Amino acid sequence: MRKGEATRSRILGEAERQAAVRGLNSVSLNDVADGAGLSKSGLFKHFESKEAMQEAVLVHATDRFMGFVWAPAVELPPGRARLEAVFDRWLDWSEVENAAGGCLIMAASTELDDQPGPLRDLLQERLSVWARMLTKEMRALRDPPLDLDDARAAVFQMQSFILGHAQAGRLMGDKNARPAARAAFLALLDRTAAG
Amino acid sequence: MRKGEATRSRILGEAERQAAVRGLNSVSLNDVADGAGLSKSGLFKHFESKEAMQEAVLVHATDRFMGFVWAPAVELPPGRARLEAVFDRWLDWSEVENAAGGCLIMAASTELDDQPGPLRDLLQERLSVWARMLTKEMRALRDPPLDLDDARAAVFQMQSFILGHAQAGRLMGDKNARPAARAAFLALLDRTAAG
Repeated sequence: MRKGEATRSRILGEAERQAAVRGLNSVSLNDVADGAGLSKSGLFKHFESKEAMQEAVLVHATDRFMGFVWAPAVELPPGRARLEAVFDRWLDWSEVENAAGGCLIMAASTELDDQPGPLRDLLQERLSVWARMLTKEMRALRDPPLDLDDARAAVFQMQSFILGHAQAGRLMGDKNARPAARAAFLALLDRTAAG
Repeated sequence: MRKGEATRSRILGEAERQAAVRGLNSVSLNDVADGAGLSKSGLFKHFESKEAMQEAVLVHATDRFMGFVWAPAVELPPGRARLEAVFDRWLDWSEVENAAGGCLIMAASTELDDQPGPLRDLLQERLSVWARMLTKEMRALRDPPLDLDDARAAVFQMQSFILGHAQAGRLMGDKNARPAARAAFLALLDRTAAG
């Protein structure tokens, strides 16, 4: 049982790595079996189809993201402390994933946007849950809580700065990308908390 | 001569369309010749190699962007009027390109980031020129001009809101993406102009 879980986790890690580089649609059971050092029938014990593996990869990647970005923050008080911790860990995530070949969640967002189906539904649902969690923290910046619309507007800006950091750092090699994103985000928190 | 230019332009349009969907590296002279209704030798009269065509496609796409986003703005007074016009046209560009299969410049930014070479150099140079143009307009928000560092920080945020709009609108089908981006940008201009 424990060995089976370790194998499944190895398969998913390999599939996620391949999908981040080539795209989720281009990942094959054969290539993943090769990369994970398994026979195709060995891999079939864990995933009966490419579709089942693709869904599991998306779940695996978004769970990893939650563990990396959210888990340390949830130990802190709601509102500002959590949001600052989330933002820093999110920048870390983006830098680490990009150095390792790219973030699957980012790649899948671009790949799946024009492909309706269960994979896109799954990704949209995961991203919606994440946006609602961030919105709740933004509301907690004030007592009584911030208006829902204002909180959503702040989350839009927060997510934008994460994307701006990724683009500036990745393509332009801009060493200032991280300080620029942090400064923009801290000023956003100040404005949002002050009203 | 005029016919030769029309053919060249048709080739580049076809190559840009294919590259936005499949990636700049996956575009072949054969497929572009097919798509443009030319023989391969007909295409060779215009581009001697895949590399020459790829560079021409990047120049073509960034020139189109400048014509679409910058050309209407440069008629207006420097500073706020130009920046507002640029932002609106940039959102338009992003929506139109996404509806037509994706923006090549955005796709190439992700594709080329880990591929050193003349194509990446060309794209980086074009994006640097664009960032410097935006920085100049941000400085013109004040008299005497805004500090260079503050102008760059504002340009980082402007570019971030464009990326946030593209991501929210594309994958999440968020109807609020455009108003959210505009509101964030106008507030940024107010803050930047006021100091």
